[in-house]
Amino acid sequence: MKTAAIIGAGLIGQGWAIVFARAGWNVNLYDPNSQAAEKGLAMIGSLLGMLKQEGLLPDDTSAANRIRIAPTLPDALAGAEYIQESAPENLEAKRALFAEMDALAAPDALLCSSTSTIPASAFTGHLAGRARCMVAHPVNPTYLIPLVELSGAPWTAADHIERAKDILLDVGQRPIVVRKEIEGFVMNRLQGAVLHEAFRLFSEGIASGEDIDATIKHGLGLRWAFIGPFETIDLNSPQGIEEYCERYAGVYESIGASLGKCVDWNKALRQGLADERKRELPRDQLEAKRLWRDQKLMQMVRQLYHAG
Amino acid sequence: MKTAAIIGAGLIGQGWAIVFARAGWNVNLYDPNSQAAEKGLAMIGSLLGMLKQEGLLPDDTSAANRIRIAPTLPDALAGAEYIQESAPENLEAKRALFAEMDALAAPDALLCSSTSTIPASAFTGHLAGRARCMVAHPVNPTYLIPLVELSGAPWTAADHIERAKDILLDVGQRPIVVRKEIEGFVMNRLQGAVLHEAFRLFSEGIASGEDIDATIKHGLGLRWAFIGPFETIDLNSPQGIEEYCERYAGVYESIGASLGKCVDWNKALRQGLADERKRELPRDQLEAKRLWRDQKLMQMVRQLYHAG
Repeated sequence: MKTAAIIGAGLIGQGWAIVFARAGWNVNLYDPNSQAAEKGLAMIGSLLGMLKQEGLLPDDTSAANRIRIAPTLPDALAGAEYIQESAPENLEAKRALFAEMDALAAPDALLCSSTSTIPASAFTGHLAGRARCMVAHPVNPTYLIPLVELSGAPWTAADHIERAKDILLDVGQRPIVVRKEIEGFVMNRLQGAVLHEAFRLFSEGIASGEDIDATIKHGLGLRWAFIGPFETIDLNSPQGIEEYCERYAGVYESIGASLGKCVDWNKALRQGLADERKRELPRDQLEAKRLWRDQKLMQMVRQLYHAG
Repeated sequence: MKTAAIIGAGLIGQGWAIVFARAGWNVNLYDPNSQAAEKGLAMIGSLLGMLKQEGLLPDDTSAANRIRIAPTLPDALAGAEYIQESAPENLEAKRALFAEMDALAAPDALLCSSTSTIPASAFTGHLAGRARCMVAHPVNPTYLIPLVELSGAPWTAADHIERAKDILLDVGQRPIVVRKEIEGFVMNRLQGAVLHEAFRLFSEGIASGEDIDATIKHGLGLRWAFIGPFETIDLNSPQGIEEYCERYAGVYESIGASLGKCVDWNKALRQGLADERKRELPRDQLEAKRLWRDQKLMQMVRQLYHAG
């Protein structure tokens, strides 16, 4: 029986615990705040119940039984071969935590961080076991959106990254490897590219925020839910991607020249956008809309990953 | 009974004919090449059969019966209140065709073009009825992906654009309004933003093409299939989009600074990407993969637009 240690019992830690437990792993859940650990475990119970109700867990699952609260960090790490840190985004805290984990964990255990903004090199360089440390950046909620970005420091060993990849595939996630440290990894860079152009189109009055959203959800996004941008253009020209590039490189390069100038996300622009969003979705409906989003996401996941 | 004239019986014209006919409109289909018209009509018949089989047409539909081939352009335009031109992307040909259509169509008929690259101002300025001319850029296949970009010339009347929007909503599409002429309209600019960053990440060796695709399809794209980029960030912070921007503007602006430098889509880069695609998907499987994509897209459409 394999064991994962989940360090930090907030939203992200809860998501990781569900991912490993539903795949049959034992999970040691640790949080320095023992009340937070109890609260996290209760939340995990509700989420597992919801996933079962939605047909997203095997019927015979006893995932909840495989998760236990570990009273101390050494106890959490004992016997764990995969360790996922999901503490707050604080560089000094991560440096200290990784030093402790590196000293306590089994020599061949992998040490991964959920950070979305801090490169692994910033908090692992001082460690004897730095070759086994890396970022494993998940998307929220981790138990529904399978992407995980693996990003090592220059000293992270390639075979440890491969091992992390195999483990994450084994528990049902879809890991990718970010080969060089870069701000935003891959996902938030692609999201940033879309957001910057969306802000620009909005700020220049080309289209309303609602219409920019519609362009993605009623247009590009319908395919991007199951094929990526390269696959999309590979299939969009009879002979494939080379032919597509030959035909359209000129158009895209011309568009590219104007993409260059990213607009400043200034106060007035944000305010204009927020005002429009508030008209479309009054703030007292934000929470209901989030529940709607999660339901939709579950339908999507059921169809794309569970329908066989 | 309302009538639409579809001018051009290629892939795009076929898509438009299906959209209007399934919504209960009469469709006059015209192509200067009468064989192309016959071929187009036969293809429409097969596509309607497939849509019916896939549960994407009402059971009692007789959409095919509402489409007829018009032998001449005047015959096609007679009685039509909405006219959609889907001829090849040739500026001179469009100028001549719009002049003919403007002279022949009923005075209050709307004249729309499917062009994805030519602004309306380039081929309508010389017309008496230029105020009713605009681009209505669809996505392929138009009968599955509902987005239509409406983009008028500076002289296109706002109420004609509103009328086009109402008609397109009425036939089940999701029109957006591009308020100023701009290269790529909104959709291909957003697609271009993603492709440019994807090319850059690939060319700098940050990630493989396969992993970049995975980042979209197993990450961002799962939500973008039903909420747009602004909605996504509005729901991703407890208090909404203003709070999200406050928290993350710094990160995105820092990413934005490096997005600026769009890479050249040079031969070596395209070749590297094509080589990877060929390893992932041998070229003799392109056609089978397209059929798979269309099946997936139909599942998606059934779930997002037909499941109630």
